Amino acid sequence: MKSIILAVDDIRAIVKRVGRDALMDELILRMTRAFDDYSTDKIKIPMRDGFQYTHPVLGLLEWMPIMEIGQKSTIKIVGYHPHNPNRHQLPTIISTISAFDASTGHLIGLADATFTTALRTGAASALASKIMAKPDSKTLGLIGCGAQAVTQLHALSRIFDFDRVLLHDSDFSIMQSFKERAAFIGIETQPTQLDELVKQSDIICTATSVEIGAGPVFDAEEYKPWLHVNAVGADFPGKIEVPKDFLKASYVSPDYREQAIKEGECQQIDEDEIGAELVEILQNPDEFKHLKDQPTVFDSTGWALEDQVALEMLLDMAKDFGLGTELDLESIADDPHNPYSFVGDEETVSKNQKAS
Amino acid sequence: MKSIILAVDDIRAIVKRVGRDALMDELILRMTRAFDDYSTDKIKIPMRDGFQYTHPVLGLLEWMPIMEIGQKSTIKIVGYHPHNPNRHQLPTIISTISAFDASTGHLIGLADATFTTALRTGAASALASKIMAKPDSKTLGLIGCGAQAVTQLHALSRIFDFDRVLLHDSDFSIMQSFKERAAFIGIETQPTQLDELVKQSDIICTATSVEIGAGPVFDAEEYKPWLHVNAVGADFPGKIEVPKDFLKASYVSPDYREQAIKEGECQQIDEDEIGAELVEILQNPDEFKHLKDQPTVFDSTGWALEDQVALEMLLDMAKDFGLGTELDLESIADDPHNPYSFVGDEETVSKNQKAS
Repeated sequence: MKSIILAVDDIRAIVKRVGRDALMDELILRMTRAFDDYSTDKIKIPMRDGFQYTHPVLGLLEWMPIMEIGQKSTIKIVGYHPHNPNRHQLPTIISTISAFDASTGHLIGLADATFTTALRTGAASALASKIMAKPDSKTLGLIGCGAQAVTQLHALSRIFDFDRVLLHDSDFSIMQSFKERAAFIGIETQPTQLDELVKQSDIICTATSVEIGAGPVFDAEEYKPWLHVNAVGADFPGKIEVPKDFLKASYVSPDYREQAIKEGECQQIDEDEIGAELVEILQNPDEFKHLKDQPTVFDSTGWALEDQVALEMLLDMAKDFGLGTELDLESIADDPHNPYSFVGDEETVSKNQKAS
Repeated sequence: MKSIILAVDDIRAIVKRVGRDALMDELILRMTRAFDDYSTDKIKIPMRDGFQYTHPVLGLLEWMPIMEIGQKSTIKIVGYHPHNPNRHQLPTIISTISAFDASTGHLIGLADATFTTALRTGAASALASKIMAKPDSKTLGLIGCGAQAVTQLHALSRIFDFDRVLLHDSDFSIMQSFKERAAFIGIETQPTQLDELVKQSDIICTATSVEIGAGPVFDAEEYKPWLHVNAVGADFPGKIEVPKDFLKASYVSPDYREQAIKEGECQQIDEDEIGAELVEILQNPDEFKHLKDQPTVFDSTGWALEDQVALEMLLDMAKDFGLGTELDLESIADDPHNPYSFVGDEETVSKNQKAS
């Protein structure tokens, strides 16, 4: 029984063939549909869980499962190692994702999720900004200009007509190199003092590797009354990016309430100060119209439904384009009652001595 | 950065090259060493977790993680679908397993774990029986003659010189076909009435798909005073195989205490009736000498350390033999701050219209 593996070459071929913009548009479209269709009766998403450690390096390795009950399941394994870029020239986030047939346990497919994690985190911010930010937002501020910032800008640029993008990063070289990394998006970027960025932006995305206990990453002293913040960096207990007073002055929508309370910006506020989850807002747009005119925060900790949508998009495209490696991965043979039956004929070696 | 994939062809080649007996011996040896070296300071094994469902079919899909803190991590994903053999000609248990570098999050390797789950469950019973059963045990009883029973017998036969193997299965055809499936082990097997099997066996392995609430699968009215039972089937809340009165009369050693309380035979007894975990017994053999002369139960729910040992054995052998498929799976390129950098040159399509 075949499993399909999408390796980096396959995903590269998909991106080249579809184009970055069309790929992002398709993901935003599919994610919009998936959020519209979501119901807790059909879909179970337990909180992600994993290993968190501080030695020998700070890191975490987590699993993010989702199941359409009895139908299919997707499990993403994601590593977060903020020292990766400097120590290993590797991205902070490295990830793979697997799809399973939930009626048999068969592994349907496995793919890189390093790229799709960046892509879907951008798309989720696009969905949130579309429903919560001012529709004619012209100025985007990026606090943290690493990998995630590229897809934040890309995704938002597919929804909004920005005039300019203000940049800030505590690492000057990363702030400087952003222009080139985001050149394909075609919007002017300018390194900006942090307080000016906060003051002038209609929308801000925070995507930093701020250390635990070292946040927030900006002060909200002066800002536009409709400022919308996509806070995407918080993913670890104690890691926060958004100042508490701004959270308290804003409508705060988490992607996943329990997870946001544990590792998102919602760590900082009382439970009764937390607004509806993004999916509820998207399913009931009329109820939440007023959000566009007030300060809002999307507390994005990462939601497995987003990962499932991104994986299925890639698997569909790979199928259309004839990409991917098909492998008989599981040792399944004619006789389900014989674990050795997949071996076939007797092995060629002679019988060994018994273990002591 | 390469990940290695061991598909069924690779594992078949390993089994053929090494031989079934030498492979089992090597696994028992490696598992013995790993149990000796185990310490909770170095190794974290959270309880397995997963999706359990009854519609449209009874099943579960679980993840079993283990981490040597900051060094490496292994995560097995295992499906248990008891209707697989009849409905799909597939094994009840289908599984894959992945190894990660815990300092970066990189996926080192992925392999089938359908075969190794059967193999390591057998090896664990061999370890338990070696320390808890009578050393000159001559009669093995198998209750449940499916896939797991084959590797139970195989593993135990590498430690004990059995004269005969008594078989019982509620499905007559499975009991009948066992002889052929286990022929390579070279020990006489005989279908036996359940009470006779219990009465005559020195060691019993229970490996059934008994339904939730329908256990136990035997009565312990008459049995040898040193009877050792490897109870390997319980893996679901409510699923049990061993009669409560036998558990109460025995020393019960779980592989993983908390997990056994939740889904093993230990569901049936009080916490103060549960003995030491197998690893503790193996690390302190002198303290537990007396177990060989009394009724004992190994409550085997499955322990991630066993899976890690089995995977590492296969990965080592694949390396020695030049087997496996190396793939650049993760979308990692020169610039860790640019999620699109792995794509290389601009894609060939022209820019698309914006999403609405």
